[in-house]
Amino acid sequence: MTKTKPTTRITTSRGKAVKAPPLAFEVELPLPSDAAVARVTDGLKAEGFGVITRIDAHSVFHDKLGVAFRPYTILGACNPKLAHEALSLRPEVGLLLPCNVTVEHAGDRLSIVRILNPAAMVRLGGLEGDTEIATLMQDARDRLLRVAEELRAHANTVSL
Amino acid sequence: MTKTKPTTRITTSRGKAVKAPPLAFEVELPLPSDAAVARVTDGLKAEGFGVITRIDAHSVFHDKLGVAFRPYTILGACNPKLAHEALSLRPEVGLLLPCNVTVEHAGDRLSIVRILNPAAMVRLGGLEGDTEIATLMQDARDRLLRVAEELRAHANTVSL
Repeated sequence: MTKTKPTTRITTSRGKAVKAPPLAFEVELPLPSDAAVARVTDGLKAEGFGVITRIDAHSVFHDKLGVAFRPYTILGACNPKLAHEALSLRPEVGLLLPCNVTVEHAGDRLSIVRILNPAAMVRLGGLEGDTEIATLMQDARDRLLRVAEELRAHANTVSL
Repeated sequence: MTKTKPTTRITTSRGKAVKAPPLAFEVELPLPSDAAVARVTDGLKAEGFGVITRIDAHSVFHDKLGVAFRPYTILGACNPKLAHEALSLRPEVGLLLPCNVTVEHAGDRLSIVRILNPAAMVRLGGLEGDTEIATLMQDARDRLLRVAEELRAHANTVSL
């Protein structure tokens, strides 16, 4: 086991100073993609989100197109209580569920994690004026931001 | 078997005259939700989209929260070729994949189908200025609009 100082950062997907909420919270994890998927799954669980779908895009591309692609996994994260409240209020919210979290191979021991920001999704749906929906989505946003922060903190304490 | 005139319409989810592309294409199908899911799956297949995820939200709510909810299914539709091209160009597109299609129970023989409009997703990702991505998403949008139109045409020829 070699000691490697992990490099981790949280940024938004767009660096521009715009009013729109960022599309995603992004974290670089010093882990191979399989381990990163497991770590992210644990982090989501701690904030009440289950992973209810998983797409290994590289496997889909291999099987359907016969092409190689770097490991790229799309997880569908769902907090059942928040989803139930939101769908009960506005059925079109289902178009925006579950909340995607992607894990992309960026090196032997480096993965890029992107967590979709529910605040951006609300805006897409034209739902930002709905106070109840906005409150639910803010809750989801706060939880997912904490997931990103926890991943960063954890990454900074591990040696690979 | 009673003859019932099916009522079907395609509208956008928001009726306002705004510049933003509509969030979704919406169709009312004179079918129970299970049959509607099967019909929608066939329609997507005809335009090159496989259903690679399925969430029965009512089952999730029942299992996790112990609450009853009307049948509400979220399908994840993916055209592997378009997805591969898009992800190859911009890895953050994975946050917006697959394309959601929801099927909601609205009566014994009535379901509301909503097909997420990829043009809206591109805008969310701030990707509308990327010509190559915009072209791919326009292709996906055209295909999914045809799915909606085919569903409407088919619904208008069946008697339940």
